[in-house]
Amino acid sequence: MRKGEETRERIVAHAAEVFNVRGAGGASLSDIMAATGLKKGGIYNHFGSKEELALASFAHAAGLVERRFVDVWREPGIAALLAFVAEFRGYVRNPPLAGGCPLLNTAIDSDDTHPALRERAQALAGELRERLRRAAAEGQARGEIRRDVDGETLATVMLATLEGGVMLSKLDGDPAHLERCADFLEAYIADRVRA
Amino acid sequence: MRKGEETRERIVAHAAEVFNVRGAGGASLSDIMAATGLKKGGIYNHFGSKEELALASFAHAAGLVERRFVDVWREPGIAALLAFVAEFRGYVRNPPLAGGCPLLNTAIDSDDTHPALRERAQALAGELRERLRRAAAEGQARGEIRRDVDGETLATVMLATLEGGVMLSKLDGDPAHLERCADFLEAYIADRVRA
Repeated sequence: MRKGEETRERIVAHAAEVFNVRGAGGASLSDIMAATGLKKGGIYNHFGSKEELALASFAHAAGLVERRFVDVWREPGIAALLAFVAEFRGYVRNPPLAGGCPLLNTAIDSDDTHPALRERAQALAGELRERLRRAAAEGQARGEIRRDVDGETLATVMLATLEGGVMLSKLDGDPAHLERCADFLEAYIADRVRA
Repeated sequence: MRKGEETRERIVAHAAEVFNVRGAGGASLSDIMAATGLKKGGIYNHFGSKEELALASFAHAAGLVERRFVDVWREPGIAALLAFVAEFRGYVRNPPLAGGCPLLNTAIDSDDTHPALRERAQALAGELRERLRRAAAEGQARGEIRRDVDGETLATVMLATLEGGVMLSKLDGDPAHLERCADFLEAYIADRVRA
């Protein structure tokens, strides 16, 4: 990797944390300068604007989220649904990057104010829901999941419940809320989803 | 009401919207000046700092959330749980104030960065969970709710699922996600919570 690319990647990795902790609106250039140890010019050598840096940072954060679930999607059918819950259960103690879930944070930060960033967060949420929906359909094809389960609803409810659990746990600094949500989904899958 | 109090309340009502839309970190004094039509001095006559204004604004927003559920908590037992879901179902089309759910927004904005604001958001989340927990206990006392339902878990899961649904719906500009979450909780209460 050339030196310029290395510097660019280092800026993005630090800035992704700053944006995730302080929010897309709250993160200032001086926060990013402090995190990277670079001056303003050193950052703007690589990025045309703070907006461009925010988009590159979210792409980096989304990559960390996707990597987190790579093994989950290798599981077939209902096993993928359970592996997703198991992986998400660790999101507060061990988030994909400092500051918690970048999907949740960026969705809240961008929904009314940053259309380009919002589009990227929509794509990540859509991808996670689509993966869950496909796992449910595969589980139905394998005869593991009841025919009357609506995969679209299950995907939305699983993602919403876990992200809401992350929000409550981060707010209270207490993993118990997220753990209750994960326990609930596991019991629901065992009782009402499994054929 | 004296003129000074009126002005103070007008500033808080406008600032609460600005903070809810742009975030505690993203809202600037010029945004608040534009929303109130006041100059910097006109705002700082009433508030010692932007932090003080943010706290007063959240207190106003929390009051709007509490008012939203006043009739819900008048219902007894399981009816309160169902009324909570029904009221929350409208949170995207008709939020308590512009910018969506102030609990969700403030939790995400403040969790890593604004301890005083975070404390206020913790109190609001705790109050909603406690109301739900008490409704579940009342439903058990009335024989409407199964003895094996854990009220603490039910309260956490209901709030998490609905707030996560708000997040996904606001992100996509599509109330369908929140509606699926509300449908799911209603069916779950009918199937697994009702005695």
